[in-house]
Amino acid sequence: MPDKPRTRRGNRKSAESAVGLDLDCLPTLIGFNIRRAQIALWRDFNRSFPDGDVRPGVFSALLLANANPGIAQIDIANQLGIDKASVVSLVDRMEQAGWVERRRSTEDRRRQGIFLTPQGVKVCRSLRKEMIEHERKFVSRYTEQELRVLISLLRRLHDAG
Amino acid sequence: MPDKPRTRRGNRKSAESAVGLDLDCLPTLIGFNIRRAQIALWRDFNRSFPDGDVRPGVFSALLLANANPGIAQIDIANQLGIDKASVVSLVDRMEQAGWVERRRSTEDRRRQGIFLTPQGVKVCRSLRKEMIEHERKFVSRYTEQELRVLISLLRRLHDAG
Repeated sequence: MPDKPRTRRGNRKSAESAVGLDLDCLPTLIGFNIRRAQIALWRDFNRSFPDGDVRPGVFSALLLANANPGIAQIDIANQLGIDKASVVSLVDRMEQAGWVERRRSTEDRRRQGIFLTPQGVKVCRSLRKEMIEHERKFVSRYTEQELRVLISLLRRLHDAG
Repeated sequence: MPDKPRTRRGNRKSAESAVGLDLDCLPTLIGFNIRRAQIALWRDFNRSFPDGDVRPGVFSALLLANANPGIAQIDIANQLGIDKASVVSLVDRMEQAGWVERRRSTEDRRRQGIFLTPQGVKVCRSLRKEMIEHERKFVSRYTEQELRVLISLLRRLHDAG
């Protein structure tokens, strides 16, 4: 009598991959799917500069500083959902690349703001254009209605936090 | 005659944040919302071990090695959507923490597989339980139908890549 195929996971939710791997509960986790989506998006974008790759945080911070000259580090941190230490090292890297400057506000000398340098403005403009081009490729996988639903369901994850 | 409020962004899609920041196109980008969601999820999870924080990649790799004893590094890389260099350093870290071992296959001595140590099995089991508990908090923000839609729309981002 032939052996019955053994089921390794019992009554746990499980899924097999294309190569016959047991993926356990991973495919059912929001976190796993978010992470995979993020990797897929950024592998495709992956713009390299002489000063290193542009990471998601740098892209968003550049856009924020461009749209809000003199923005405070704490406001960048809040919008990106990152902590104070992370935003400091993020702005450090942008400063080292020559894309931003930290300057004291003329109205309130205690307040320090982030300003784009002329080079930063150029980089920001070109990245923004490339980003919208890049997003188009992924946006095209959805109907308009599906895209609206996706964005609104994603917001529910980070807005309620 | 009072000045008209200036619109900085012209006909570009734009949005104001709660503190009156101009968020430019960020809130409409899939990538920005994915990233924010990922940060929100992992801030909430954030399990620390003596050997350091458990990052998303480590969690998934542990689960895969647990469900597939002797799994090849390349299979972990493929399932996580990461490259060869990243998976090597990921497995290095797990090995240093004492959670996995690299062992040659008894059938094919050229093939090296990843096996969980008894400590790794314990860590994996407890992380898996905590992860499902943690996901429940976010899952509860959706109806069953919404959750199905979210997962399937997210898959379209990483499966088609």
